Parts: sequence; structure tokens; C-alpha cells
Amino acid sequence: MAKKIITFGEIMLRLAPKGYYRIVQADSFLASYGGGEANVAVSLANYGMDAGFVTKLPGHEIGQSAVNALRQFGVDTSNIVRGGERLGIYFLEKGASQRASKVIYDRAGSSIAEAKEGDFDWERIFEGADWFHFTGITPAISKNLADICLKACKAAKEKGVTISCDLNYRNKLWSKEQANQVMGELCRYVDVCISNEEDAYDVFGIKSEGTEVTAGELNKEGYREVAKKLTERFGFQKVAVTLRTSISANDNNWAAMLYQDGSCYFSREYPIHIVDRVGGGDSFGGGLIYACLNDYQPQDTIEFAVAASCLKHSIEGDFNQVSVDEVIKLAKGDASGRVVR
Amino acid sequence: MAKKIITFGEIMLRLAPKGYYRIVQADSFLASYGGGEANVAVSLANYGMDAGFVTKLPGHEIGQSAVNALRQFGVDTSNIVRGGERLGIYFLEKGASQRASKVIYDRAGSSIAEAKEGDFDWERIFEGADWFHFTGITPAISKNLADICLKACKAAKEKGVTISCDLNYRNKLWSKEQANQVMGELCRYVDVCISNEEDAYDVFGIKSEGTEVTAGELNKEGYREVAKKLTERFGFQKVAVTLRTSISANDNNWAAMLYQDGSCYFSREYPIHIVDRVGGGDSFGGGLIYACLNDYQPQDTIEFAVAASCLKHSIEGDFNQVSVDEVIKLAKGDASGRVVR
Amino acid sequence: MAKKIITFGEIMLRLAPKGYYRIVQADSFLASYGGGEANVAVSLANYGMDAGFVTKLPGHEIGQSAVNALRQFGVDTSNIVRGGERLGIYFLEKGASQRASKVIYDRAGSSIAEAKEGDFDWERIFEGADWFHFTGITPAISKNLADICLKACKAAKEKGVTISCDLNYRNKLWSKEQANQVMGELCRYVDVCISNEEDAYDVFGIKSEGTEVTAGELNKEGYREVAKKLTERFGFQKVAVTLRTSISANDNNWAAMLYQDGSCYFSREYPIHIVDRVGGGDSFGGGLIYACLNDYQPQDTIEFAVAASCLKHSIEGDFNQVSVDEVIKLAKGDASGRVVR
Amino acid sequence: MAKKIITFGEIMLRLAPKGYYRIVQADSFLASYGGGEANVAVSLANYGMDAGFVTKLPGHEIGQSAVNALRQFGVDTSNIVRGGERLGIYFLEKGASQRASKVIYDRAGSSIAEAKEGDFDWERIFEGADWFHFTGITPAISKNLADICLKACKAAKEKGVTISCDLNYRNKLWSKEQANQVMGELCRYVDVCISNEEDAYDVFGIKSEGTEVTAGELNKEGYREVAKKLTERFGFQKVAVTLRTSISANDNNWAAMLYQDGSCYFSREYPIHIVDRVGGGDSFGGGLIYACLNDYQPQDTIEFAVAASCLKHSIEGDFNQVSVDEVIKLAKGDASGRVVR
Amino acid sequence: MAKKIITFGEIMLRLAPKGYYRIVQADSFLASYGGGEANVAVSLANYGMDAGFVTKLPGHEIGQSAVNALRQFGVDTSNIVRGGERLGIYFLEKGASQRASKVIYDRAGSSIAEAKEGDFDWERIFEGADWFHFTGITPAISKNLADICLKACKAAKEKGVTISCDLNYRNKLWSKEQANQVMGELCRYVDVCISNEEDAYDVFGIKSEGTEVTAGELNKEGYREVAKKLTERFGFQKVAVTLRTSISANDNNWAAMLYQDGSCYFSREYPIHIVDRVGGGDSFGGGLIYACLNDYQPQDTIEFAVAASCLKHSIEGDFNQVSVDEVIKLAKGDASGRVVR
Amino acid sequence: MAKKIITFGEIMLRLAPKGYYRIVQADSFLASYGGGEANVAVSLANYGMDAGFVTKLPGHEIGQSAVNALRQFGVDTSNIVRGGERLGIYFLEKGASQRASKVIYDRAGSSIAEAKEGDFDWERIFEGADWFHFTGITPAISKNLADICLKACKAAKEKGVTISCDLNYRNKLWSKEQANQVMGELCRYVDVCISNEEDAYDVFGIKSEGTEVTAGELNKEGYREVAKKLTERFGFQKVAVTLRTSISANDNNWAAMLYQDGSCYFSREYPIHIVDRVGGGDSFGGGLIYACLNDYQPQDTIEFAVAASCLKHSIEGDFNQVSVDEVIKLAKGDASGRVVR
Repeated sequence: MAKKIITFGEIMLRLAPKGYYRIVQADSFLASYGGGEANVAVSLANYGMDAGFVTKLPGHEIGQSAVNALRQFGVDTSNIVRGGERLGIYFLEKGASQRASKVIYDRAGSSIAEAKEGDFDWERIFEGADWFHFTGITPAISKNLADICLKACKAAKEKGVTISCDLNYRNKLWSKEQANQVMGELCRYVDVCISNEEDAYDVFGIKSEGTEVTAGELNKEGYREVAKKLTERFGFQKVAVTLRTSISANDNNWAAMLYQDGSCYFSREYPIHIVDRVGGGDSFGGGLIYACLNDYQPQDTIEFAVAASCLKHSIEGDFNQVSVDEVIKLAKGDASGRVVR
Repeated sequence: MAKKIITFGEIMLRLAPKGYYRIVQADSFLASYGGGEANVAVSLANYGMDAGFVTKLPGHEIGQSAVNALRQFGVDTSNIVRGGERLGIYFLEKGASQRASKVIYDRAGSSIAEAKEGDFDWERIFEGADWFHFTGITPAISKNLADICLKACKAAKEKGVTISCDLNYRNKLWSKEQANQVMGELCRYVDVCISNEEDAYDVFGIKSEGTEVTAGELNKEGYREVAKKLTERFGFQKVAVTLRTSISANDNNWAAMLYQDGSCYFSREYPIHIVDRVGGGDSFGGGLIYACLNDYQPQDTIEFAVAASCLKHSIEGDFNQVSVDEVIKLAKGDASGRVVR
Repeated sequence: MAKKIITFGEIMLRLAPKGYYRIVQADSFLASYGGGEANVAVSLANYGMDAGFVTKLPGHEIGQSAVNALRQFGVDTSNIVRGGERLGIYFLEKGASQRASKVIYDRAGSSIAEAKEGDFDWERIFEGADWFHFTGITPAISKNLADICLKACKAAKEKGVTISCDLNYRNKLWSKEQANQVMGELCRYVDVCISNEEDAYDVFGIKSEGTEVTAGELNKEGYREVAKKLTERFGFQKVAVTLRTSISANDNNWAAMLYQDGSCYFSREYPIHIVDRVGGGDSFGGGLIYACLNDYQPQDTIEFAVAASCLKHSIEGDFNQVSVDEVIKLAKGDASGRVVR
Repeated sequence: MAKKIITFGEIMLRLAPKGYYRIVQADSFLASYGGGEANVAVSLANYGMDAGFVTKLPGHEIGQSAVNALRQFGVDTSNIVRGGERLGIYFLEKGASQRASKVIYDRAGSSIAEAKEGDFDWERIFEGADWFHFTGITPAISKNLADICLKACKAAKEKGVTISCDLNYRNKLWSKEQANQVMGELCRYVDVCISNEEDAYDVFGIKSEGTEVTAGELNKEGYREVAKKLTERFGFQKVAVTLRTSISANDNNWAAMLYQDGSCYFSREYPIHIVDRVGGGDSFGGGLIYACLNDYQPQDTIEFAVAASCLKHSIEGDFNQVSVDEVIKLAKGDASGRVVR
Repeated sequence: MAKKIITFGEIMLRLAPKGYYRIVQADSFLASYGGGEANVAVSLANYGMDAGFVTKLPGHEIGQSAVNALRQFGVDTSNIVRGGERLGIYFLEKGASQRASKVIYDRAGSSIAEAKEGDFDWERIFEGADWFHFTGITPAISKNLADICLKACKAAKEKGVTISCDLNYRNKLWSKEQANQVMGELCRYVDVCISNEEDAYDVFGIKSEGTEVTAGELNKEGYREVAKKLTERFGFQKVAVTLRTSISANDNNWAAMLYQDGSCYFSREYPIHIVDRVGGGDSFGGGLIYACLNDYQPQDTIEFAVAASCLKHSIEGDFNQVSVDEVIKLAKGDASGRVVR
Repeated sequence: MAKKIITFGEIMLRLAPKGYYRIVQADSFLASYGGGEANVAVSLANYGMDAGFVTKLPGHEIGQSAVNALRQFGVDTSNIVRGGERLGIYFLEKGASQRASKVIYDRAGSSIAEAKEGDFDWERIFEGADWFHFTGITPAISKNLADICLKACKAAKEKGVTISCDLNYRNKLWSKEQANQVMGELCRYVDVCISNEEDAYDVFGIKSEGTEVTAGELNKEGYREVAKKLTERFGFQKVAVTLRTSISANDNNWAAMLYQDGSCYFSREYPIHIVDRVGGGDSFGGGLIYACLNDYQPQDTIEFAVAASCLKHSIEGDFNQVSVDEVIKLAKGDASGRVVR
């Protein structure tokens, strides 16, 4: 029977001009739906897991469209609460070459931001669940949501559900001080932490003290140090650190490291020609959770997670629409992109 | 030199699925910009008038796109204040046959809704102006806006600027009681009132007492009565009443009446095969103001206004993109739609 | 708890040129999915029912896309069998004015056409089900499918599941003789029969003997007679007859009659300006089943079913994407298509 | 063996905004190719005739695209001369309801307008030809073209090729005096004349003298009179008069009359819901020529020509993409637009 | 007079999501037509050759659209037989970065697969022909087609027509054993063989025995060895080997070698940023045949063929839409992509 | 108060197939508007300057669309003269990889080409102006325009307006001899000259005499030499030389040099992945003028101008739609293209 995963957070309407058009040039917007935790749920549903997404959505057609977008991929939406006024929106302008992608958030006053504790019955939601995932964006959205996250973590913990969290610091939503306090509280319940070097520093002030080493070496050692400190502070079972190098808006290098039982496992690094970069981190989270739930070895775990997110960069929209077979094929080394007939 | 008109209100991002698709079917939205008073300004700019639109818009690219949409047609945007958080949005699903069009508003928290009195320097804005136009939507958006409207009316009056108002009651924005009170105050400054039978009743409780007459006659007499009562209460110079018959989402009949100096002037009625019905009333307002500013006779005035709005129904988007020549050609009786080579 | 309905049949990839383009003009095809019984399932899921669709689909991405299309609307796809070679396709060219719509079927060799009896475990599928629906298309597709339909009917009957069938004769799939024999066998299990005048004649040779009456009267009497004969022959609880008048490819009139307990209930007739006519009959079936499952009175039943299918004609694609509220609003008489704000 | 038809004239790039958008709203133009005589050639090629189109086109890719558009339908393009500077363009804005369609021509300086007599070897071109067709647009384009038309007519006449001409007066290209003189000369070679009431008057000053009759009668008699006068003046074998009633930009009535051997044959009249009206007259010409070349009886001839052009109004682009079977089905009376499965 | 080439095989409807969308994301498919031998015919027609394509297509509009697609480029379609049930389809999902392109074939039961020997009159077809081309896909489609290919080869040989064959092994269509046997028989008639290293091995088990050399050298020697062995076994006049290096789905290197009279001629290698990779091999074949028919020197021949196929990778669709001038410009060394004004 | 800039020249309708489609594949064209001097005006308006564009445009809707395109970005269009017959058109086919972009001009007979001296009242136009810009394309269009340019230069000079000119030699418009003579006359009034190495040679026969140095050094020295010679001959205050290296149609390197007061200032070089290359030079001009008008230091000036044009290559259409902040961010060194949230 498929493992059951619950993710909780905000799903937004994503509006993006076609191709590389700027927002001021747009006379139409491609409409899709996405958000950190929803993206993880879709990844896992695509891998055949029993993934459920929990949120609050307005009762109207825009809210319904978000539900439909999730149902389409087999995500369980039965725990989504309907009510409130609006669905958060984000406008995405895809960058090219030296011109950066740009995101305009229009998420204030969304149904989930104004959700109340009583909206979610965590006891029932976690019935039979194996894993709970959320990101640092959710508690940042509103005070209520921070409280609800805490309640969810406690309920999950009591039921023996593994908890993962992607730190995902967003400075437009809260200050570093707020993040430190709230995330510090929440991370006490977290088993698997996902971060990049910046998030660890922004949220917890954790960085490497590395000195006088050659660049490449320094970084590897630095990442280990960050992961070690995070682990020491919160007692994480695993810490995964994603490593992105942005060459241009079109080209990024992408790799990651898994820190587990005091050891570091570095993945291959992929030079990526980007189709759509949004949701790249979430697809990493989805791959990581899948590998963990399927008891992959640490090196296989990090390779699967990175290959999954590498593929995501080639796919339009927030959602990572790939199969386990496709991820494994890449993780095992076939990155040639040869036609499959 | 072109007459100068100032309109004041909200402009929104309009998001509509292509063709007759429902919102839940949409994977893209056509993006345009519109709003009652902005639509009137565009009409007038297209007729060669010096039309300026006043509002408050966020500084980001979505706000800029609204500015650009107006500038494109030559509307003066120099009095638009930039600031605040968001641009209001409305989702439009075009109906067909027995299925009605549907509008979902997502306008709470917009820059204009949260504008403050100090944002607008009406003295300067009305410098050299001939006409000021607003609709009942603007004061309904927020208490602040009701106050600002009043201030604007007073400033306009002092400068001898003619004021027109389209009652446009929206029950999602305020109650009939609130409307009655606020609009009652504002209408004391208004010279030209635009209404339909419902608005007059919803806002001011004014309706015809007509009895025992045949249907057609009753209506004509009823409209006269409503216009007369409005005039008696507020001292309007002119009252224009629009007369829409909705046969289906595709087919409407459209006509109007002008009440002036105690006389009624009824226009021709047009059977319209609808392309886009939104902004139909605003295009009537634009045509009416144009005719007034160009000293048309009453019958010519109402024919011009109705022909203008008849054409609007054949045009995609909120804005009425027609020329004076095109309106006059129709108003003079050529409704055959023969190819112009 | 929502009533559970199972429908069984073929779902196809529908490929249609944009707008009114002919197939030979098409450089792209709009892709959607549909089929008689799948369309009914989607209607019912949209009404909040627990609707499941049973079929066999190829394992590849085209098959998966069909699954996703159904899941998106909440249809239960857990009983869909994966295997076989291909998904049936139909090309749809939308007609206009005097030019008729044209359908080219390319469905030979589809996974469902080649399905075997062992593919479906009807005992399990009908667990907890309230209703089973199929159309005359399914047994026409292949000998295997006729046998499977019979097996399904027997299993349903044993479990006390109500069975409905839309006769839907397709002369490209089988001869009238074949249809007569197979459908005659199947209809012995059917409780609710849906037909139009042609189907009843094509499949069972049943027609009205009406004489010397004025046109309108004749028809009403004729429909009653057909329904009565069908009922006498097969013991149906209800017979619904749809009444379409094709004025042009753009304009149809649409009504229906329900025959129940010896009485006839005629619906209103709607003059429809067509957006997409395909699936019109299926949406009638969906509305009828909904009304039956919710114990509507006969007149309300037929009004609901016709209003539902009237709305379908305004919606792109095979699926009827309307809510119960929308259907009821129309069934209660509001056909004006006025904007809902 | 298929009958061989040669048509001669200008083919243009047609640029039209999508749907009902106005030109000032367009951020893209649908691109197709068309022109009076080219449209006739395509009609005939679609009917299985050996149709060749003669013109002069620039050597670049836009010119090549026009060639490809014709080849696609099997039109013989081997007599198209390549050279000159540009392809004529016309912008088409599709009207709706009371808003008329609008055409902006940008055809000055085109390769065909500047063609020289030596460009075309009519002896060779008419080798084995049965029919030659041109319209009054071609000689109006330039003095050169008028001379070339005359030369072509003489060459055709000498080879016993039947000649048809659609008067098609365009007041932007020449004056009535010029038209009268040039067309008067050319019509001496013409066997089959196509006209509408306006053309006959604009070009030759021919109109009916009818008085004091009821409207309907007057017209029928008037058309006969016009056809009779044309025949008397030029000795035409047949005169076909098209009868269009423009109700709105969406709805036209369409019929025609054939005058032959002193008798008048009136077709059915079709109420048309228009998809694309351009090329309607040319599709009539194509149908007429097909019927003549296949020795249809006069009534069948005019019914075929009108049914063909009726269908054209439902098809996007200048070209009439219908088969003989489709035309015959409509001409024989099936105008219901019922789905063909 | 242009040289006459006949190609024979299957043309399919190609359905591809827009841009880099996956099939499961597609709500429309770009529709075009293509297939190995059809693609070669289009290449040659674009180079001004008299290229004819022979196949069997269904009589309906989808079949007609394939004919039109070929006619558009001037391919002679007069030897295409109409009949049978369906046109083969292939779905193409364009890959990006590490995600490979994916092809789903849906070609079983196509008209050409079920063609019979009597459908083609090779004596007549090869009248006046200079060249005959087919690929290893055609005989793989069905036993019938293998026999028809053999018959065509014999007929061509008798008429002194040069024969080329692209081995093109497709493991979904037949086994290596079947390929070996059938292709072994057919290749006895072939003069010019096109292959890549894999095809030669898959079909004939021919590979290089090269050892202990540095990579680059090994390959060059290896290709020579393969070509030599092929020549020895079948007596080919020329063997062309294409050399593709797949760096990612976006970036490939592309070169080729011609083996003739015991010598090897290697082309330049092009680093290609891919727009559409499908038909790349066919465009090589088209270029090769053109160069041979125009008596190019061996080095010029292989440079022309590779430059032609290099350009194909920048063009959407199966067909290589380039002119001889464009190919020569690149073959002569201008690969800068500078704007041509 | 914003600095006022006047630019003068031709604006054309740009018609481009979508994506990388060739013109012969296009069934629609993306429509936008652009031209050397109009592009500069839009750049400057986007930077907040008071930029006005002067030209002559036809009165019809295509001319109006060009006006609207400019107004949209706040360009002052009040000095555009309306009249004449047509708007020039250019067709743009975007190249990819080794396939070059291709431009087909269709600009003969445009309103601006046939403008007369009396059309422009330069005294009034330059009222309050700070800068006048034109390119070598404008005087090349017609003899009239060369005279008008001269008149404009004289009027500007008299009013103390700074004049810049981009040499922009187009060999399809005039010969090198004509260019030399006319541009030689005009450049006597120019203060700031923009050129690339080819233009300086084509127009004035100026090139570097550099010998025996390593490649890189040679170029730098050569550019200095060219700039020095230009300065010596015409007394320019500044000469800016753009340096483009075309690697493929997708990838270019881009840099520039400013020569001022005898010193050379070289910018960074950007490796650009091209979205749209047209208008790249004009965006450089716009950036240069902005920097000059804002008294940037020479190195900052050239960095701003190059960063501005680097960004332009990532933007669809002729117009450079970037803000001062975006340019400065890049000029200061952030070329990573990281998402801006």
C-alpha cells in the first residue's frame, strides 16, 4: 500500500506571460497553480504515493480550479477547507540571459492566510499518515498559520509521523528575528531539514567558519559544517542542502548534499538549461521524501532528489511532472537527452 | 482646443478565459484593464477629447501595465498616484446562450481602496477642466473614497466643472442604506445623472407608480416618471436612463432615454449580438458626455450615446474603441454591418 | 453521504481545430477527452456525487492524460484498468450555419475495444454503488464489450444497483440487427432508458403510428407512444426521450419528455445558440440520474435534465461543467443570461 | 480528364486580427492569402478540376508563401511569374453586430500591379484550357494589367476558351468612367458575366426602371431587367446576379439569379450566420463555373453556385474549402447543420 | 529539367505539445505531417527537384491534410493511393536539458501498413525517374510493405534508377533478426546507403574492431571500417555515416562521413542548439541525394548534406524548409547566424 | 524636470512568425512596431525622460496602432504628422543556431518616405528640447528625408540642442557613395556619433591600419583608431563603437567602447543568450543618451549603455522595456539572472 504523506501550506494562482515576455508586455497570462507544499504533494502523487494537501481555499471558481489542478495528479484534496475571500496570486516573469526572473506576490488576505486553528482537524488528517511536510513559508504567512503549523507538528509527532521542513526564508513575509523564533520552535519537531546555505544563515544565523582553503574544498567543508550545526541545534535525523550556481537566467548548475549520521553525501552536479526554475527546490523535497520513504541508501537518496529537481527545471509550471522511472534513469547517469522512441 | 474631462475611480486587471471557456477550464487568461470611470476616459480620448483618469496604483509592473493601457489611447495619466499594495482584479467568464456571464471580484485591499484624501490635489487636477465624471462604484469601495469623492465634487463645483455620475449600484460593495446616504450627498453636486431603472430604485428607492397601461406604454411613462423624480430630488440638468433587455447571454436589446427640461427623448433600440458586454454602460456615459460637450441636441445626444454603446457590445475588452465617425454612421441609421472597403 | 454511480465505456482523445476551422485548415488541435459514459460521470461528479468511471486505457502518457482529465473533476478512476495499445481518438470539426459539424472516428484497436472479461471485477466495482450507467455505444464497440456489458448488468442487478442506458445507436459501429439483438438482451436489466425517436426506431424498430393530427400534437402523442412501447417491451421504470430540432449548426431547439408510471412530463423547450454540441445527450443523462438519485418529482426531473443539457451546449468540450445551482437557476426559469456579479 | 481552368489576377497577403478584435487591438495577425481570381481557382481545385492561377509574385518568402498556399490545394502554380518588389497586403477587421467589417488595402506597387505584357505567354498558358476567369479588380489595378487582360481575353477567345468575368467594381481602384471604358472593351470577349445590382450600375450604368410594384416583385423583375440589358449590350451567354441582404455584420441573407436564354432562375435564399464573409462572391463564381463545366441545368447551376457560396460564409479565410458532395448535399436541401458522424 | 526522385513510405500526423510542455500537460497539440521518406521528398522539392512521394492514405480529411502538406512544398502527390482506414499518428514531446524527447507511436492499422502489392504500379511510377529512396522503417511496418519495397527496388533497378536507403532501425517495429533478413535482401539493390554506427550494428551486426587508440582517432577509423564492411557486403557505391553526439536534449554535435571509392570524407562538426531534432537524419538524406544528383565532389557532397541537416535542427516540424543557397552558405563556412537584412 | 529628447525617423509594422518558425511556415504574425529612432525614444521614455518621436504616419488604423504603441510607453506623439498612404512593414524571421535571422523590408512608398519638408515645423518641435537623435537610416530612405534631416539638424543646432547620430548603414537603401556624401554633410552637426567598425568603413571609408599585433590587442587599438579618425574628421564630442561577436543566431557577445577627449573606455563584455536581437543597437543609443543627459562619467556611461542593450537582447520586440534600476543593477555587475522575489 502506498505511503501516505500530508503537506500543508498555501497554493496560489500563478500568472505568467508567455515565453520570455515581460509583464508590461503581456496581454494574456498562462494560469497554473502552485506553492511550496502543494508542489511537493504533486511530486509524490506522481511517484505513486498517497499524497494529500491541506489548505484553505475560497469557495468560488478560482478556488475550485486550484482543487482541480491538484486532483488531476491524484493528490488527495479531501482535507482542503473551503471558505474565505481569495486565493493568493503570484505573477511570474521569466527571465532570460542577464535579465532575472521576477516574482510579484499578491497574496495578502488569502483564505489560508486568514485560516483559523479550528479549520483543521489534525487528528483526523494524520490518520494513517507516514510523513508530514511543510516549509518556512507557511508559518511566515500569518501569526495564525504559525500557530496552526505548531499544532500540526505536535499532532504529527504524537502519531509518530515523520516531519520534514524546507526552511525557505522569504524576507517579504517576515523578518529574520521572527523567522528565527518561530522556526526555532517548529524545528524542534522536525526530523528532516532541507535548506540552502542562505536559508540556514538567514533563519538561524548558521554559517560556515571556513578559512584559507581553495574554493571548491571550502564549500564542501562549509556545507558539512552548516549541516552539522543545524543537526546539533535541532537534532535533525537528516539535513539536505541544495547547491545552486546561477550562471544566467537560462543556465544554472544544480547539486545537493545529504548530511546523515555525521556523514556527507554529495550528488552529481547538473548543468541545467532552464525551462522553468520555479518549484525546483520543492521538487528536490519531493524526491527526498520519496527516497526516504522507500528506504534508499543515503547516496541514492541524494542522487534521486537532485535528479528529480534537475528534471523539474525542464518542465513548465510549479509542478514536477516526472515519473520514478525517469528520475532513476537520470540518477543512474543518462543525461544525454537522446530521443526515447 | 479639445475639451478636458477628468474621471476618477478604480481601474482593475481583468482576467478572462478565452472565448466561452469557463474559469475552471482556463489555462490562460486574457489580460486587459478596465473600470467604470477609466472606460469613460478611454471613450472620450478616442473621440479626441483631452481625457484624464485619476486613481491610485501600485508601483509595480501590474500597476504600470494599467497606466500603459490608458496611455495607449491617449488618456492623460499624469494625475495617477503611485503607491499602495495591489491592483484590484476581476475575473470574467463570458456567458453564452442561457448560461450567464459571471464576474468574480478580487478587489479588496487595492491601492485605490486604501487611498487617502491627501493623495489627490483636486485644485490642480481640475485646472482647466470642463467635466468631471465618476460612478457610484467609487464611493462604495471604501469610506475614504466616499470622502474623497465628496471633496472632488466640491472642488469641481467651485471651479464650475460640470459633474456627471452613473449611479451603478453594486450590492457586493455596500448596502442600499449606505448607498442612499452617500450617493444622496454626492448627487447634490451632480449635473448629469446616468441610471437604469434598477439603480434608481436600489439607491434612492425611486420607481414608477404606473398602473393599468399596456406594457410598452407603461415603460416609457415609467422611465419618464423615474427621471422626473430624480430630477426633482437632486436638481439634475439631465437624466439618462439606459434600457437593456436581456434575451440571452448572446442577444440583448439596447436603448436609452434622455430626460431634459421636462422632456423625454427615446433613442432607437438595437438588437445586439454580443461580443463583450462589459463596459456597455460606461460607453454610454462616454458617448453622452461627448455629445453634451459638443452641444448636441437632446435627440442627437441620446442617439449618439446609444449608438456608441451599441458598438461597444461588439468590441472585446472594457474599453470602447470606436471613433466619432463610426458612432455617427450608426446613429444616422446604417446598422447593416456591410463591409467597409 | 454522496450517492455512488458507476459508468462504463470508452473515453477518447478528442482533437478539434480551433473555432470554426475545418480539419484541412488545422495546424493545431485542441485536445480534450470525452465519451458517452465518461461525460455522464463528470456531470455527476460536478454535482457532488461519488461518480466512478470504468474503462481500460493504455499505460502511456495519452492514457494517463485521460485519467487526469477525469480525476481533475473528482471522478473516481481507481477502477480503470491500464493496458492495451492505444486510446481511441475522434476528430471533431465544428460546423457553423448551414455547414454541419463533422466527426471522424479513429477508435479501432483501442485498449477498451480489446479488453477482456477478466479485466473487470464487477463484484468489487459495484461494492456500495447505487447506480450503473452505460450507453449503446459500449456494446457496439466489440463483441467482447457486449459480453462484458452483460456481465456488468447482471452483477449490478444482483447487487440491487439501478441501471440506466442511453440507446445511442451508431451505425458505423454495428448494424441495426446486431444492435437489436444485443441491446434487446441488455435492456432486460435496464431500469431507466434514454432515447430519442431515431434510436428507438433504429435499435428496436419502435415508432409512433400517429395519424392525422396537427404537427405539434402528433409529436407529443408520438413520443408518448414510443415511450409506452419501450416500456411495455422491456419493463423500464422510466423512459426519457430527448427532442432536438436542428435549425442550423449554430441554433438548435432542445427539450425532452419523461415517461413514468404511464404519464408523460414534457420539459420547457430552449432555443440554444450552440457553443459545443457534443456531449449534449450525455449531460441530459447526467442530469436525469442526478434528479432520480435525489428523488425529484417527474416534472422537476425532466426540467433539471433538460436545463443541465441546455447549459452543456454553451460549454466547450464533452464534459458538462456546471453546478447544481446553475442548473436549478435555469430550470426555475431564469434563461436571460444576465451577468452574475 | 479534369477540365482545365485558368484564372488571372492578384493574390494578396491577408492579415486579420483574431476573432472580433479591432486592428488597433491586434498584437498578432492571422496570415492567409487570397484574391478574387485565386479564390475561384482554389474552389475549382477543391472540386477536382485542373485549376491554374496566373499572377506575378516577388521572389522572396512572402511571395513563396502565396505560391505554397495555392499549391496546398492543388492549384497549378507553374504559370506564376516571379519578380517585382512586393506582395499586396490587405488588413481585414471582422465586424460584429452593428459594427461593419473593415478592409484596409495596402496593394500599391505590388509585383502584379507592375507586371508587363511580356511577363505572360498566353498562348502557352491557354494550351488545353477550357475556361478563363477574371474579375473587374484585375484591370483596375493598373493600366498595364488592363492591357494584359485584354490580351489574355483575345488569346483565350482565339483558342475557343470560355471566358467569365465578375464585374466587381472597386471605387478605390478606379473611377466609374475608367471602369466603364475598360470593362466595356473586355466584356465583348466575355461569355459568362457575374454581377450584383450595384456593379452593373457602377460600371455600366445599367439599372432596372421598375415602378409601382410591391417590394419583392419589383426586385425579381428588376434583376431580370438588369441581366437582360447586360446581355443585350454584350451578348453574354449567361448572366448571374448575386443577391445579398445584410441584416448585420453577423447575419446576411444570400441568394442569386441566373439569366440564360431569356429565362430567369432564382435560387433558394439562405439565412447565413457568418463566420467569414470575404470571398463569398468568389465562391459563387467557382460554383458557377463548376456547374457550367459539368453541364448542369440552369436551376441546378444557380443552386449549386449559391449553396457553394453559402457554405463559404462558414469558413475562415478567403478560400472556399468545400467538396462537391458537401455543396450538393446543401443544394439538395439539407441545411440543418446536423452532426455528420 | 529538374531531376525526378521517388520516395516511398509512411507519412504520419505528428501531434506535439507546444514548446517544452509534456504530453500530460497538453491541452492542444501542434499538428504537422512527416515521416522518413516524405521528409526527404520535401527537402528535395525545396531544392527545386521534381520529388514525388508514394504512399497510401485514407480518403478522409486527415488523409487529405497529409496530401496538402506535401503539395504545399511542390511534392508530386499524384501517385498517392487513397483508401484504408487511418493515418498513422505519432505524439512528440520535446525534451529539454536532461529530459529526453519522447515519441509515442500510434501507427498500427494505418492505410499504408495495410496496403497491398496491387496498390502501386511501379512501372508507371518510375517512368522518367532518376532516383528512388526508402528507409528501413518502411519494410518494418508490415510484411506486405517489405514485399512491396522489394518489388519497388526491382522495378527501379530495371529502369536504371539509382536507389538509396537509410537503414533506420526501429526496434519497436521488428526484431534485429527480421531486419537483418529483410534489409539484407533489399540492400542488394541499393546504391547509396545511409546509416549511423548503431543501425549498421543493429541491422547487420557490423561494427568496428578498433582497439587501443585514443578516442578521437578510434572513431574515425571505426567509421571507415563500418562503411568498408557495409560496402564489401552489399557493393554500395557510397556509404554515408552520420555522427551525432548528444550533449543534452538542447545541444547536440552533428557531423558525418562519406565513404566512396575506398576513401573517407569527413564533414565539419556543428555544435547545434536544437529547435526540433526530428527529421534531422532525413534532411541529411535529402541533402545527400541532392548533392549526388548534382554531381558534387565527395567532400562537397558530405558538407552539403551535413549543413542541410544542421539547418534542419533549427526548424520546427519534420520537414527541412531550407533553400540550396542557405545550405551552401553554411557549408561554405558562415555559421555565425548574423541577421540577413 | 525631465530632459526632453526628440528622435526622428521611420516606425514600421513588424511582422514576425511565432518562436523560431520560418516565414513560409507562418499562419500568423506577431505584430509590433519599431524602428531605429522610435526604439531610442521608447528607451528614454522608459527611463523617465520626456521623449518625443517625430514621423509621418497614414491616417488609418495601422498608422494609429503605431501611435498607440508609442503612447503606451509615454512617448510624446503630438508631433507625429498624419497623412500619406502606408506604414512601412518589415517581416522578421528569427534565426536559431546556425540559421541566421532574416529581415524582409516592405517599406517603399511609406508616409514618411514621401513626407515633404513642410510637414515638420522644427522650430516648434525643438522648443525646450535638450537632445536630437537620428540614424543613418532616415536620410537613406528618400531624398526628401535627407533634406529634412539636414533642416532638422540646422534647427537643432541653432537652438543649442545636442545631436546624436547612429551611422547605421543599410546597403539596400543607398550606395556607399550616397551615404558618404549625405552623412558627411549631416555629421558636421552631430555631437555624439554611434557606430560599429563596419559602418565607419562603409559610410566614410574609415578603418584601422593596425598591423602585427595579437588579435585582442589589435582590436582595441583598431577601435580607438577608428574613433579617433571619425572625431578628427567631424569634430564629434563623443564616439561610441559597439562590438558584437556573433557566435550563432542564439549566442552573441556584446560590448562597446566610448571615445571621449582622446581617451578610450571599454565596457565589460556580456555573453548573451538571445531572445530578440532586433533593436539591440538602438537600446545602446538610448542608454548612451540617458547617461550623457545625466552627466555620467565616461566609464559609467559606456557601462550603462552596454548593460541596457545587453538586457534588450532578452526582450521580445524592438523596444527596450527596462528601467534605469534594472540597467544599473546589471551595469554594477549582477549578471547572475537570479530570481527577484
